[in-house]
Amino acid sequence: MASQEPGTLSPSLLPHKYSNRIVLKTLLERSDGGVALAGQRVVIGGWVKSFKEVKKDPVPTQGNDQKNVTCAEILQSRIPLFRSIYKILCGGGGGSSGNHPIGGKLEAVVATPPSPSTAFLCVSDGSCAATLLVVVDSSVACPGQLLFTGTSLLAKGVLIKGTPVHGNHVIELQAEKILYVGKVEDEKYPLSKKRLPLEKLRNFPHFRPRTTTASFYVASVMRVRNALIVATHAFFQNHGFLCLQAPVVGYAQKFQVTTQLGDADKEEETRSTKDTGDVNLEIVKAAINEKNRLVEELIRSESNREALAAAVKDLLKTTQLATQLEMQEKLKSGTPSKPDKVDLSGLLCLESYACALGNVYSFGPKFQDDSIVTSKNVAETWMVEAQIAFSQLEETDKAFETELEWGGALTAEHLSYLADEVYKTPVVVYNYRKEVKPFHVRLNDGVTVAAFDLVVPKVGVLISGSQSEERIDTLNTRIKEFGMSGEQCEMYLDLRRHGTVKHSGFALGFDLMLLYATGLNDIRDVIPFPRSFGKAN
Amino acid sequence: MASQEPGTLSPSLLPHKYSNRIVLKTLLERSDGGVALAGQRVVIGGWVKSFKEVKKDPVPTQGNDQKNVTCAEILQSRIPLFRSIYKILCGGGGGSSGNHPIGGKLEAVVATPPSPSTAFLCVSDGSCAATLLVVVDSSVACPGQLLFTGTSLLAKGVLIKGTPVHGNHVIELQAEKILYVGKVEDEKYPLSKKRLPLEKLRNFPHFRPRTTTASFYVASVMRVRNALIVATHAFFQNHGFLCLQAPVVGYAQKFQVTTQLGDADKEEETRSTKDTGDVNLEIVKAAINEKNRLVEELIRSESNREALAAAVKDLLKTTQLATQLEMQEKLKSGTPSKPDKVDLSGLLCLESYACALGNVYSFGPKFQDDSIVTSKNVAETWMVEAQIAFSQLEETDKAFETELEWGGALTAEHLSYLADEVYKTPVVVYNYRKEVKPFHVRLNDGVTVAAFDLVVPKVGVLISGSQSEERIDTLNTRIKEFGMSGEQCEMYLDLRRHGTVKHSGFALGFDLMLLYATGLNDIRDVIPFPRSFGKAN
Repeated sequence: MASQEPGTLSPSLLPHKYSNRIVLKTLLERSDGGVALAGQRVVIGGWVKSFKEVKKDPVPTQGNDQKNVTCAEILQSRIPLFRSIYKILCGGGGGSSGNHPIGGKLEAVVATPPSPSTAFLCVSDGSCAATLLVVVDSSVACPGQLLFTGTSLLAKGVLIKGTPVHGNHVIELQAEKILYVGKVEDEKYPLSKKRLPLEKLRNFPHFRPRTTTASFYVASVMRVRNALIVATHAFFQNHGFLCLQAPVVGYAQKFQVTTQLGDADKEEETRSTKDTGDVNLEIVKAAINEKNRLVEELIRSESNREALAAAVKDLLKTTQLATQLEMQEKLKSGTPSKPDKVDLSGLLCLESYACALGNVYSFGPKFQDDSIVTSKNVAETWMVEAQIAFSQLEETDKAFETELEWGGALTAEHLSYLADEVYKTPVVVYNYRKEVKPFHVRLNDGVTVAAFDLVVPKVGVLISGSQSEERIDTLNTRIKEFGMSGEQCEMYLDLRRHGTVKHSGFALGFDLMLLYATGLNDIRDVIPFPRSFGKAN
Repeated sequence: MASQEPGTLSPSLLPHKYSNRIVLKTLLERSDGGVALAGQRVVIGGWVKSFKEVKKDPVPTQGNDQKNVTCAEILQSRIPLFRSIYKILCGGGGGSSGNHPIGGKLEAVVATPPSPSTAFLCVSDGSCAATLLVVVDSSVACPGQLLFTGTSLLAKGVLIKGTPVHGNHVIELQAEKILYVGKVEDEKYPLSKKRLPLEKLRNFPHFRPRTTTASFYVASVMRVRNALIVATHAFFQNHGFLCLQAPVVGYAQKFQVTTQLGDADKEEETRSTKDTGDVNLEIVKAAINEKNRLVEELIRSESNREALAAAVKDLLKTTQLATQLEMQEKLKSGTPSKPDKVDLSGLLCLESYACALGNVYSFGPKFQDDSIVTSKNVAETWMVEAQIAFSQLEETDKAFETELEWGGALTAEHLSYLADEVYKTPVVVYNYRKEVKPFHVRLNDGVTVAAFDLVVPKVGVLISGSQSEERIDTLNTRIKEFGMSGEQCEMYLDLRRHGTVKHSGFALGFDLMLLYATGLNDIRDVIPFPRSFGKAN
C-alpha cells in the first residue's frame, strides 16, 4: 500500500489527482527535500501554521526576540484600532469571494499606503507534518490578510532553493499570485492563542485536527491511527483471513463480561462467597496496601524471582478476597437482574463464517454502555474481532507465571494493577472462572473456561480471547444457566448440530491500542470525533 | 497486500500460523496445483462438500449415474432404519468428543461387520473455492460418519498424486488418521437438499456461507466483498487520503435527500408548481408511457443520437411534470414537518479533518430508514465517504449530455429509469435543484446546487457527490431555510469562519457496489448477516 514514493527523485511533481494543487508530501518528503525541483511553477494549498513579516523600510524592529512573530503582528493582535486600520489599508476583505469582510467594521479609509514588506508563511496542507515556506511580497498580496494562524490559501508560484536566513527550509515557494484566501476571525479563533491546554482543546473537536503543539498534535495521532488501520487489514489479509462487515446494532452484549447470572449460579456464588465469613473489607484493603509495598520493595531490591512470585501470589490472593467481599455486599444489596434479550448477531456472524470460510475478522464500531465515565470508556468504539476454525487455546508463555486462586472475579481495576504496578509489562491472564465470561466460552473442567485477557500497562484489557464451546450439550447447559433463549440461541446451537469444529477468537479494542501506541491517556484524544465530547455531545 | 504467494513453487507448505493444519489455499492455488508436494505428511481441516463411497467387494452398484453419490449413500439418506443400523455399526458416535450420538437412537447392535470400502471426500476449508480430495479407507475410519455434506473433519495423511479415476484432482490426501469429526444431523440440516432455492436460503443466514450452488455461492460473494474492502483502502491510501473512523450514531440525515423544507422554500415550491395548472396526473402518466415507447423504438432502430437525445429530453420533461404534480398533491394533503434535530457529527468529522489534513475518507456502517422494504434498502449499510480540500466539482463528461429541465425533483425511480432503460449504462446526473439536496451543498446560482449522482443500471444511485458551501453568508441562509439550528450548526459554520476552503466529497454505497460487481439483485445477499433477514430479524 505504499504510495507516491516520496523518496524517489522523479523530475516532476505529483499533481493532486482531484484538484489543481500539488500535494506537499510529494515535495517535502523527497530524499533531497525537493531541491531538485527548484525552478518549477506549481500551485499549492494549505493553512498558515506560523508566520513572519519583514518590513523593507529601514525602521528597526527593536526588542523583538520572538522568531515567528514580528512587531507589526504583535501590534495587530494587541491593539484593535491598529488592526482595523491595517485591515482596511490592506483590503481586509480579500479572498476570491471578495466582499464579506469578517469581524472588521467599515471605517474611514486612511490615505497612507502601507510600507512594503515580505510575508514568510509556514504552510501545511496536512499531507505530512512538514510545512512549506511560502514567501509573499506585499506587491503580490497584502500581508494583512495572511498573517494569522489558521488562514487558508491557494498560491501559485515558483519553487526556489531555500535561503538559510529563513530557517531550515531546503526549498521554498516564491508566490506569484494568491488565488484564494480563507481568513480567520482572529478574536474568536481558539487556536490563535498558542498552546491551548488539552482540556480546553476538547471543547473544539472540529478544530483539534489543526493543532500543532508538541504535546498534542491531533493530526499526528490520526496519522498513527490511519497507519494502524492499514496495518490491521494487512496483517489479517496476509494471514489468509477474510474481512467481514458484521452487524453493529445490539452488539453490546457480545464479548461483555457479565455478572448477571442465572439462579443456579447465583446460589453457587452466594455459597462460595460465604467462606469469607465476617472479615472486614477495610482490614483486607489495608492488608492489600501492606502487601503492595512489600512487592514494590522486592522489585526495587531486585530480589530473586521466587520470593517476588510468592509475594505477588499472596497479594493477589488478598486482592481476590477483597473482591469476594465486595461481591457479597453487592449480592446483599440487591438481586442482579436477568440479562435482557441478548443480541448475538455479531457473534453469530463471525462464527457462521468461521465455520465455513475458516478464518475471518471484522473491523467496525461497537456500542457500549458509557454511563460510567472513565478515560478508557466511550459509547462508540472500534473493535477488531477474529475467529479461527480448527483452533484451540494453546498453553501461554509460562516463563513467569503466577497461579491465581480461583474463587473471586478479577475486576478491571485488579487487572490494570497487575500490568501497571506488579509486572509493569503486558500480562496475560487466563483460565477465568466461568461466571465472569460470556455463555459461549468453552468450559475447561466445570469451573474455569478457556479464556484469556491481555492486559497492558496504563490501558487495561487490550485483547480478550476465548475458545468457543463446540459441544452442543455443554453449550445448551450454559445457555440455560445464563437464562437465555430465543431464535438466535437456536441458530448458535445449529452451528454445533451440523459440522461443528473447535474454534477460537479474540476481540481487540482498537481505540485502546491507539492509547497504547501513542502513550496518550484519554480515549477521547485518539478518536477522530468522540460523541461524549464538549459541544459535540 | 498479496499473501502467501500461492503461485510459487516453495518446497514446503505454509502451515496455518494459529492451528496445526495447513491452509488448503497454499496447496491448491500453487501454479503446479500442489503436485510437487506429493509425499509430504500434513494435517488438513474442512467441511465435506461432496462425497462418494466405493465398496471393495464385487457387488455392482447398478443404475447409479450420480457421480458423487453412491448407492450406499442413497440407502442411508432415504431409509431411516438402514441409516440407524449403519450408524451403530460404524460407531456413529464418533468424533473426539465421543459419546453424544446425535439424532440416532440406541438400538440393538447388529453383529455383521460392514463390508470394506473407501470414502472419497471433497473437502473445503474455505480458504479458496477449490476442494481437496481426501481418501479415507474404512480401515482408517468408518465412512458412515463422514458421508454427509457439511460434516467437518480434521485429518492427518500423506499427499499423493491424483489419479484420473477420481476426477480432475492433481493432488489428493491419503488419510492415515481422522483426528476429529463434527457430524451433521442429516434430517435437520437444510443444506442436505441440493440446490436450495435462494428465497429459502435466506432463512438460514448462519448456513448461507456454506452454500456451493453455482447460482448463489455466498462464500464467493464474500471473497469479492473482501477484495473490494481491500481495494477501497488501497485506492485511498495510494492517493494520499487518511482513513477516519467517523461517528456512526445519528448519522442518518447526513446525505439524505430531503423534501422537508423551511417555510420560505415551501412557498416558493408552491409557486413553482402552480404553473402546472389543472393538468391531470393520469393523463401525464399516459403520455409518459407513450414517450417511453418512442424512446425504446428509437433505441431498437439504432436511429441517430440527436433524435434519441431529443426524445429522451421530451420524456424526462414529461416525467418531471408528473413529479411536480405529485409533489403538489403532497403539499395539499399536509404540511411537511420540520426536520428533527439534525445530527451532523459524521459530516462535521469529515469536513473538520479535510480542512486540516487535506484528504480524508471514512469507511463504516450507517443507519438508514428501512421502513420502506425494497431489494436495495437495509437498516444498516456500509458507506465509503470522502472529502477533498481545495477542490470543486469540475465539468463532467458531456459527450452525450441531455439537459434536464429543472423544476421537478427526479425521484430514485426516475434515476434508475435513466440508467436501466434509456442509456443502459452508468449515468451522471448533476446540477440538481437546491430543494432536493441537503443544506450544505454549494449553491451554484440561487436555484441549482453543485451536486451529482452516479446512477448505474439495476442498482440505482451508487455515488452521491457534492461541493460543500464554503461561503459563510450563503451557508447561514441555507441553514435558516432548512429550519436548522443548534451547536453542531455553529461548529459547521465555524469551519467557514476560520480558514475556509473550497472542498468537495462523495458518498458511495458499498453494499450497492457489491450488487453492481456481482450482478445479484437483493442487497441482503451481499451483506454477511443482514438484520432484516429471516430468523435473524
